[in-house]
Amino acid sequence: MRSSIDHYLKERVTLIEAELARIVAESDSPAARLFDAMRYSLLAGGKRLRPILTLAACEAVGGRIEAAMGFACAIEMIHTYSMIHDDLPCMDNDDLRRGRPTSHKVYGEAIATLAGDGLLTDAFAIAARASSGTDAPVVLRALAELAEAAGSSGMVGGQVIDILNEGKPADLEQLKCLHSRKTGALFVAAVRSGARLGGANQLQLDSLTEYARALGLAFQVVDDLLDVESSTEQMGKRTHKDQAHGKATYPAILGVERSRELARRLERQALEALVAFDQRAEPLRDLANFAVERNA
Amino acid sequence: MRSSIDHYLKERVTLIEAELARIVAESDSPAARLFDAMRYSLLAGGKRLRPILTLAACEAVGGRIEAAMGFACAIEMIHTYSMIHDDLPCMDNDDLRRGRPTSHKVYGEAIATLAGDGLLTDAFAIAARASSGTDAPVVLRALAELAEAAGSSGMVGGQVIDILNEGKPADLEQLKCLHSRKTGALFVAAVRSGARLGGANQLQLDSLTEYARALGLAFQVVDDLLDVESSTEQMGKRTHKDQAHGKATYPAILGVERSRELARRLERQALEALVAFDQRAEPLRDLANFAVERNA
Repeated sequence: MRSSIDHYLKERVTLIEAELARIVAESDSPAARLFDAMRYSLLAGGKRLRPILTLAACEAVGGRIEAAMGFACAIEMIHTYSMIHDDLPCMDNDDLRRGRPTSHKVYGEAIATLAGDGLLTDAFAIAARASSGTDAPVVLRALAELAEAAGSSGMVGGQVIDILNEGKPADLEQLKCLHSRKTGALFVAAVRSGARLGGANQLQLDSLTEYARALGLAFQVVDDLLDVESSTEQMGKRTHKDQAHGKATYPAILGVERSRELARRLERQALEALVAFDQRAEPLRDLANFAVERNA
Repeated sequence: MRSSIDHYLKERVTLIEAELARIVAESDSPAARLFDAMRYSLLAGGKRLRPILTLAACEAVGGRIEAAMGFACAIEMIHTYSMIHDDLPCMDNDDLRRGRPTSHKVYGEAIATLAGDGLLTDAFAIAARASSGTDAPVVLRALAELAEAAGSSGMVGGQVIDILNEGKPADLEQLKCLHSRKTGALFVAAVRSGARLGGANQLQLDSLTEYARALGLAFQVVDDLLDVESSTEQMGKRTHKDQAHGKATYPAILGVERSRELARRLERQALEALVAFDQRAEPLRDLANFAVERNA
């Protein structure tokens, strides 16, 4: 299975990156530097797990990936903006991301902030425009959910909690609450929007939400484990930094072994949420395995 | 007329501020500080000219303001986010806005950046959710236009050009190009979205776009004039700063008198664009006058 998921991921990454490069095109406008900065971060590689999930959820309910491509790209743009802003000196002050200097290191803080703003804003234009073949009320609902997942009650709120809690002890419940906003909400929106655009019924939507919640949390637990266990070279970003920043993590609270067990349990939960789906959900099953077994 | 527009503006400001306060509610969540920061900037007063234009454009084509209230608030949220980010130390480094310390002075740079991100993102959720009585394809088109106006080809692009051009000489054409993105695009989106949600036909939409372009530019010319001629106390923000920042302005290029003439000519253009409209466009006419005659 490992080689089939590798092939699948590679093919999907190529497809998504071609679309992202088309959406955020090079420009000879007076604002060319903005587009350079947006492309620098957006086309820096990465697993593209969120947009791949959007397309896979669309297919799992019988939809065609074209219907979900706009949202898939929008979600990757939102994910990229959040990394640019998180890396800023006033936030995590990171100088390395995806193996390259962070945006503000290359373009300065002002352009980096604006590249994030541009990616975030353009994402909603893409989502609204790119789904013209789909029932407009469905697109509108998916767009509202995406904005809510990324906004003050979701990702932005999660980042605030993360910053405010630095150096404070946290228990497992608080950590779960933090991550459900900071990373989980966007995973859920990625899967739900793909499913909606693929024509999911309510039962399918509920099951896929369960899947996405478990997967998103598993992803985060593994992220924490990789931060402890991996090298900067392997990850393309500074590792061992959670402890340095005084951040609560799963390995810090549970220990490495129990964290790994938790990730595996969450993987099983994700798979169980898919029991009623046929072979078209096979990529989603493989992705749950990939999120937990990955080593970068 | 002066007193009737004053009364109209006051009434609309009250309506819009009540709705903004409802949308961005106080919170006892772990992210409460984020909502405090969002409210601090969003509810700091201001002319509320953009959302008032949205509602007035909706009414000018025979719509009810309820249909446009969600977009009106979304647009004010986007305007507020852009001020928070523009004021950041890495951008214009302003410490005073609407008569109060800027967001980062009160909440620090990290929370200020995130308050801006939250307002921007939540705005799209509000726009997508709050217009459920309206034809979904119309809402989707208005939302796409709003995101495009605020994004890399509009407001964000304009801010980048503004930053890159600091200290460089600019001619009138470059200045117009800058402002059509930095402030004009959002004025146009404010008017067009209100008109769309009010049920405008294409002819009305075209005329109102003309109106909004002229008004937006007039507003900026007057802003430049006020920066030269007013005191910090009067404006509630630092004045005389364009020159200090080496920014090209209308008074610097044209002189004060010819800038004032330009503003009046733009006001006439805005009014001419409304000739085919009946008395329901009277508030839009008054608003064009207000944008030029204001002294703060």
